[in-house]
Parts: sequence; C-alpha cells; structure tokens
Amino acid sequence: KKQNPTSLRKIFSIHELFSLDVWRASLAELFGTAVLVFAMDTIVISSYETQTKTPHLIMSFLIAVVITILLLATFPISGGHINPVISLAAAFTGLVSLSRAAVYILAQCVGGILGALALQAVVDTKTEQTFSLGGCTLTIVVPSANGPVVIGLKTSQALWLEIICTFFFLFGSIYIAFDKRQARHLGRVMVCAVIGVVVGLIVFISTTVTSAKGYAGVGMNPARCLGPALIRGGHLWSGHWVFWAGPAIACVAFALYTKLIPSQLLHN
Amino acid sequence: KKQNPTSLRKIFSIHELFSLDVWRASLAELFGTAVLVFAMDTIVISSYETQTKTPHLIMSFLIAVVITILLLATFPISGGHINPVISLAAAFTGLVSLSRAAVYILAQCVGGILGALALQAVVDTKTEQTFSLGGCTLTIVVPSANGPVVIGLKTSQALWLEIICTFFFLFGSIYIAFDKRQARHLGRVMVCAVIGVVVGLIVFISTTVTSAKGYAGVGMNPARCLGPALIRGGHLWSGHWVFWAGPAIACVAFALYTKLIPSQLLHN
Amino acid sequence: KKQNPTSLRKIFSIHELFSLDVWRASLAELFGTAVLVFAMDTIVISSYETQTKTPHLIMSFLIAVVITILLLATFPISGGHINPVISLAAAFTGLVSLSRAAVYILAQCVGGILGALALQAVVDTKTEQTFSLGGCTLTIVVPSANGPVVIGLKTSQALWLEIICTFFFLFGSIYIAFDKRQARHLGRVMVCAVIGVVVGLIVFISTTVTSAKGYAGVGMNPARCLGPALIRGGHLWSGHWVFWAGPAIACVAFALYTKLIPSQLLHN
Amino acid sequence: KKQNPTSLRKIFSIHELFSLDVWRASLAELFGTAVLVFAMDTIVISSYETQTKTPHLIMSFLIAVVITILLLATFPISGGHINPVISLAAAFTGLVSLSRAAVYILAQCVGGILGALALQAVVDTKTEQTFSLGGCTLTIVVPSANGPVVIGLKTSQALWLEIICTFFFLFGSIYIAFDKRQARHLGRVMVCAVIGVVVGLIVFISTTVTSAKGYAGVGMNPARCLGPALIRGGHLWSGHWVFWAGPAIACVAFALYTKLIPSQLLHN
Repeated sequence: KKQNPTSLRKIFSIHELFSLDVWRASLAELFGTAVLVFAMDTIVISSYETQTKTPHLIMSFLIAVVITILLLATFPISGGHINPVISLAAAFTGLVSLSRAAVYILAQCVGGILGALALQAVVDTKTEQTFSLGGCTLTIVVPSANGPVVIGLKTSQALWLEIICTFFFLFGSIYIAFDKRQARHLGRVMVCAVIGVVVGLIVFISTTVTSAKGYAGVGMNPARCLGPALIRGGHLWSGHWVFWAGPAIACVAFALYTKLIPSQLLHN
Repeated sequence: KKQNPTSLRKIFSIHELFSLDVWRASLAELFGTAVLVFAMDTIVISSYETQTKTPHLIMSFLIAVVITILLLATFPISGGHINPVISLAAAFTGLVSLSRAAVYILAQCVGGILGALALQAVVDTKTEQTFSLGGCTLTIVVPSANGPVVIGLKTSQALWLEIICTFFFLFGSIYIAFDKRQARHLGRVMVCAVIGVVVGLIVFISTTVTSAKGYAGVGMNPARCLGPALIRGGHLWSGHWVFWAGPAIACVAFALYTKLIPSQLLHN
Repeated sequence: KKQNPTSLRKIFSIHELFSLDVWRASLAELFGTAVLVFAMDTIVISSYETQTKTPHLIMSFLIAVVITILLLATFPISGGHINPVISLAAAFTGLVSLSRAAVYILAQCVGGILGALALQAVVDTKTEQTFSLGGCTLTIVVPSANGPVVIGLKTSQALWLEIICTFFFLFGSIYIAFDKRQARHLGRVMVCAVIGVVVGLIVFISTTVTSAKGYAGVGMNPARCLGPALIRGGHLWSGHWVFWAGPAIACVAFALYTKLIPSQLLHN
Repeated sequence: KKQNPTSLRKIFSIHELFSLDVWRASLAELFGTAVLVFAMDTIVISSYETQTKTPHLIMSFLIAVVITILLLATFPISGGHINPVISLAAAFTGLVSLSRAAVYILAQCVGGILGALALQAVVDTKTEQTFSLGGCTLTIVVPSANGPVVIGLKTSQALWLEIICTFFFLFGSIYIAFDKRQARHLGRVMVCAVIGVVVGLIVFISTTVTSAKGYAGVGMNPARCLGPALIRGGHLWSGHWVFWAGPAIACVAFALYTKLIPSQLLHN
C-alpha cells in the first residue's frame, strides 16, 4: 500500500511548525480555550452558588451549551478542537499533522492560563478559595476537629475515570466528527451539539457517581486543568499528572480502535 | 418463489463467521455495549444519588440521550445494534445473517463484561453494593427486624414485562429502522432518536409502574444484564434467565408479525 | 357530477372485507392499539406514582411522544389509525372504504383488550384497583364515613367533553393528515408529531380543567376504553356509552365540516 | 492587495450619514432597543418578584428568548444589532460603514431612553426604587445601623468583567453571525438563537459568580445602561463609564483577533 509513506509524511510534516497559517489558526484555539476555561469554571461556581438542589444537572446542561457554541465558533478557523485530547486524537487518526497538533496544544495551554487569569480578575478571594478557581482537584484539604484532613478520591480511581470517560467521549462523539461521511450526514450543528451533550453527560455522571467531596469531576481536557493549577498552585498540583496521563492513554486506545475497524469507513 | 433459497443461504451464511470484516465491525459492538453499560449504570446511580424527587424521569431522559448518541456512533461501522435483541431481530427478519448476529451477540456480551469491570473500577464499595453495580435484579435481600428478607417482583410478572416491553420496543422503534423506506424518509438522526426515546420511555414505565423495590426495571438487553451478573454474582443470578428468555420470545413474536404484514412493505 | 357513484362504490366496497391485505394490514392496527393501551395506561399510572407536583404535565408530554412514535410505526402498513375515531373519520371523508374502516375498528378493539390483558399481567392487584387498569371512568366509588359514595363527573358534562375534544382533535390535527397537500408540505414526522401533541394537550386540559376526582379525562378513543372495561368490568361500564357516542357525534360533525369547506383543498 | 483602499472607502463612507435608507433602517434599531430595554428590565424585576429559589436561571432563560426574537425581528431591516457593541464590532470588521454604525448607535441610545421611560410609566415608585429601573449599577446605597453604606463591586473588577464577558460574547456568538459562510450554513434562526443563548448564559454567570449585592450584572450593551441612568440618575451614574469603556476595549480586541486569523475565512 503506497498510502503509508504519504500519510507518514503528512503526520510528521514539520513544515507546518513554521507555517503562519497554522499559528494564526491556533489563535482561535487559544481564545477558544480561554473562553472555555472562564465559562466552565464560572458555570461550576454559579451552579453551586445558586440555591438549587440539583446543581450538577444545571451545570452539566450549561456546559453542554457552552461547548456546542464554542465548537461552532472555532470550527471554521482551526477545526474546533479547544481541547488537547481532540488535537492528539486528530493527529493519531491522521486528520491533522503532529506539528499542527503540537502548535494547537501549546495554544490551548496558553489559553487555559489566560482563562484562569481572567477568572481570578473577577471573583473575590473567598469564592476563589472555596472553588479552587474551578480547577481539577483530586483531593482538598478541609479543617476538622482533629486538624486539617485530606478528603477526595483515590488516585487510581481518578485515573480509571479519566481513561474510561475520555474513551467514552472519543468513541461516542468525536468519532462522529472525524468520520467525514457521518459529519456531512448529520450537519455541523448536530455534530457540535452531540459533542457538547456527551461532555455535559460525563460531567454529570463523574461528579455524582463518585459522590466524593473534594473531587472536582473528570477533567477530559488537560489544558483546562493546567490553567488554574499554574495560577493557584497548592493542592491543585497533587495528582495533576492524572489529568494528562488518563486522556493520553484513552487517545492511544481510541487510535487503535479506529485502526482496527474496517478502514474504508473513515475519511470518506 | 425463488427468493427463499437465496434468503436461506443468506441467513445461514457460515462464511461470515470467518470474515475479518465482520469481526472488525464487531469491535464497534463490543466498545459500544461497554460504553452503554458503563453509561447506563452510572446514570442510574447518579439519578438516585442526586437529591431530586423524580430520579426516574431524569434517568429515563439521560438514557434516551445516551442510546441515541451510541447508535449514531456505531451505525456506520456495524449497523448500530449494541443489543442482542436487535441483532437477533435483524437476523430473524433477514437483514443480517445468523452468523453475523452470533458474532455481534458474542461481542456485545464481552462488551457488557468490560463495561461492568470499568464501572467497578471507579465506584466505591458502598455504592457498588447499594446499586448491585446497576445490574438487572428481580429481587434484593435487605436486612429487617426478623433477619434478611427478599423483596422484589414475582418471576412471572417480570417475564411478562420483558416480553411485552421488548415487543413494544421492537414494534414501536426497531421496525422503523428495519423498514428501509421509512428509515430513508425519517433520516438517521430521527431513527436513532426514536429508538432512544422508546427505550427511555419503557425504562420510566417499568421502574415506576411496578413500584416494587428491588426490581431494577425491565432489561430489554441481555448483554447489559450479563456483565454485572458475572462481575458481582450473588443475587444478580437469581432469575437471570428471565432477561434472556423474555426478549427472545418477543423477538420471535416480532419476526412472526413482520412475516404476516404485507411483505412488500419491508426491505424497499 | 359523475364522481359521486364512483366514490359511493369506493365507500361501500364490500370486497375489501374479503381482502387478505386488509386483514394483514389490520394486524398493525391490532398491535398498535395494544401497545397504545399498554403504554398510555402505564404512563398514567407512572405519572401519578412518581412524587411530582405536576403529574398531568409529565403524563401529557409522554402520551404525546408515544402517540407520535406509534403513528410513525404503523403509518406505512395500515395508514396509522390505531383509533376508531380516525378510521371512522377517514371513512366519512372518503379516504378509506367503510369495509376497511370496519375491519380496522374490529382489530383496534381486539388490540385494546390485548393491551389491557398485558397490563393486568404486570401490575400488582393494588395498583390495578387504584387506577381501574388505567381505564376510562366517569365516576369511581370511594369509601367514606357514611359508607361508599360515588364521585366523578356528570354524564352530560362528560358527553359534551367527548364531543368537543374529539372535534378539536379531528379539526386541529387529523385534518392536517387528511389534506394530502398539507401532509406533503409538513412531512410525515411533523404530521404525526402534531397529532401526538394535540392529544397530549387535550389530555392535559381535560384532566386539569374539570378537576373532578374520579373522572379519568377525555377518552377520544373507544378502543382504548373498551379493553380495561371488558377485563376489569364493574364501575368501568357505568357511562361507558359516552366514550362511543361522543366521538361518533364528533366524527359526523367533522365529516360535515369537510364537506362544507371548499372541496379542492382535500385530496390534492 | 487592492482590496484595502476599497474597504477603507467603505469604512469611512460619510455619504451614508445623509442616506435616508440608513436613517429609516435605524428606526428598527431604535424600537428594537426600546423593546429590549423594556423587556429585559421587566424580566429582571419579574424574576426577582416571583417566589422562586432560582431567579437568575429563569431570568437568563427569558432574556435569551427575548433577544433571539428581537434579533429575528430586526435582522431583515437593519441587520439586527440593537446593541452598540455589535454595531461597533461590525464597523471594525468592515461589515458596515463607520457612518452607519454611528447612526445606529445614536438610534440605540434614543431607544434605550424610550424603553426606560416606558418602564417608568408602568412600574410603581417602590419597585422603581428597589430595582433602580433595572439599570446597570456597580454599587447601591443601603441604609444600615451606622447610616447609609455603599455596597457592590469594585470598579476594576467590574471593568474586567465587562471586557472579558463582552469578548466572550463577540468571540462565541457574534463571530458566527459575521462569518457569512457560517451564517448561511447554520441558518438565521440558529444564529440569532446562539447570540440569545450566549447573552443569557453570561447574564447568569455574571450575576451569580460575583455574588455581590448591589452589582446588577455585566452590561454588555451601553445603550441599555444609558436609558435608566438618564431617567433615574443618582447612583446609576457612579461608574457608568465602565459600561462604555469595557465593551469598547473588547471590541478592539475582537477586531484585532479577526484581523490576525487567516483572513480568507471571513466574508466568504
């Protein structure tokens, strides 16, 4: 099969690292991720501040709406990733080059930091502390009668959650977007809405099913977790590697899956 | 009529058992069912953990959404069954060969086990015990003043529920998907949504109408019930045959129905 | 005008009584009505059993969904009536022959009985008694301090409700389905959804506006009322004629209406 | 590139200041903004007067609906701005001339005043005082045990909120409307709905995340803030510049963003 060298060249196309268009497109990723971090974290805070008995449900619904809209806004410029997981999966399945994926992931991380800074500028110190800037936490330290104690989720449990949920995310929604025939069939709004709804659903599941106070729910987006961790530091760094390793493992599993299923189905 | 030998050959086409394409396509069934089991069971747990007065309603709505999305994701690869009931009904109505249906059902059962394992990896022991891993139970054993007692549904009642609900499921939604003229008319998203909504509706009805604590609602998907039973065992095995016999009987009834109605209406 | 003898022959075409195709198509009506009765009655029971403050709303919404889906499932086989009212109205406006309508209505009545039997097989005795198998009641007998008393709606009021609501149903939704130009314009899904929503709306109005305990809401489908009455008997027979006479009068009124409006609008 | 002088001429086209068509179109902006101010402010008041625990949620949902409808109503006449922010951003990205934008902004300010006058005509004095006519406040003066005190948000925090939220608004929704290829792809209703939903979402976030009594939430529309300030005066003027400076800075940032991303993507 002659296609292999071509797609290999395509995968490692270093020249895209020096392409102005790639860097300009990555601006959409940067601002998209910044807005995503700002919006998701304020939604988390707002949902819990609102006096409702079902903050998880409201939060998940609003996150689904925000992600749908941001994907629609960035899709025509950069392809609408705003998540290192999607960029990596797109590179693994040959949709974009590894170089472009690297530039995008860099932009997403910078965007995540900008978003966390923007959030810090508008919330007061007490809210910032209560919600850890809306960051990805495995555990938090709370005062108790016997001095401060650490509550939260076990690292192994959190890693499994990251792997399983990210695979669910990739299998259930991203595959639809990557399969061009499907995407054309469903239309852009539908594809973006499916991705948004799946993320919202997983957020709902992961925050309620563990029922572990201190665990902020599944990350599924390392750039989103990096920002608050860099800005606020402290306990946000403990177990932070889980939010990178879990999604990365899921991306490899997803890439294997797309290689194993009948190949004529993708990229048509 | 000369069509019969052809369709008989088609039904028993053993060669598909050795076709690599069938086994690769069955991967979509495997992962689809794994994600389905993980998602449905976490949704059940999440809905009851959320402090709401209508967990059945929320649960049913989310299940409808999940099934719609998973059918959309697996449809172009394997045909989108992720349920032994649909594979069997498709074989009975001549849409797929019996061999392919057998491979799919095997993959679905393996997927169901994987999903149950994934679930076990992320929930703590107490939640696992309370919800029986989200498995299909007829009865549960609860402690009482006079020692442990068995509460739940009578086996005959559960069997009737399986038969009636699976027939409702096949008659009300799968028929639309199998009738190619209808499917083309409605579009893929609509067909998948109808199936998802019917399943959600039946889950809502079957969990509330019996009002029997200990009964986990109608199964309508043996692969979904097998996984938790194998992983957790115990009382999940009592009456487990109901979740296989009921849907099988409904499949036979549905096949008879499709043979009796004017035949030019199917497969156009 | 020469068209009259033709359409008269069409209306009274006795030969359809002996057509196998008509009887086979009526199977879809039979199973459709059976599923309808089972689904509607379990929805009514589920909605009241759920601890919600708005059972009427949830019930009406779910009924709208069920009817939409069942119409979609039976439309390509039998035309999608699953209600003697629609079969009668279709015969009166010349869409189907009187013979076919008679076969369909017979099938619907048998289906209604099957659905009631299926319901009886799965609910426990207490639920069966509380909800009268989800049947159409004008009055119920409740125990009180002074012995059992009859509460409910006056027969004349119920008859007027049946006539007005069935006419509203025919005028507001069935007319759209019968006018072929409209139906083509809206598409099949939309037409079925409009019928479902109108039924749901009328159920919501008729159960809340009368606010009479014991009255089960407007029937608008005699086959649906016959099943539970035959299976359970007792007070379900008192005033049962209302659920046949009311819709029949509305059908006559609707037929007059379609004759009076400019005729080029129908059957195009 | 020859396009630049053309678009420069287009941007500064003074002749549009004397075009009757522009002034007539601005009437849609005037009445659109008047209705917007009246509707948004009455929604704010109604939501808080309603005895619900989640006034923010209801308010945000209703605002999203109102904005969607008003954009649909004014789009075919003036382009559907009803917000100086959109007019300015449209001028910066070359969609309309600066002259037309100036006329529109003038009309929007007059509309905002009319809307505030209409509101004053219908609410009683007490409600008017409690809600500051639904105007944009940073701080309010409340009586306390130690005499009247000023409570609210710090000016710098409010300015950051205006800048970040307006950029989010422009990046997430207005960009979709300005990119003609996207707009055609999504359809007009969808574009207007996206804008409405994003505004609703930001209102929800900005009112709950700050949790600062006295702060009325992010303005994102100077014309909306000007009306109540002119009619009611007083503390509505303190920090009023924030509601003009913030959105203006965001417009400049958005214009830079649209210049930096690959330019062939806009205006196709």
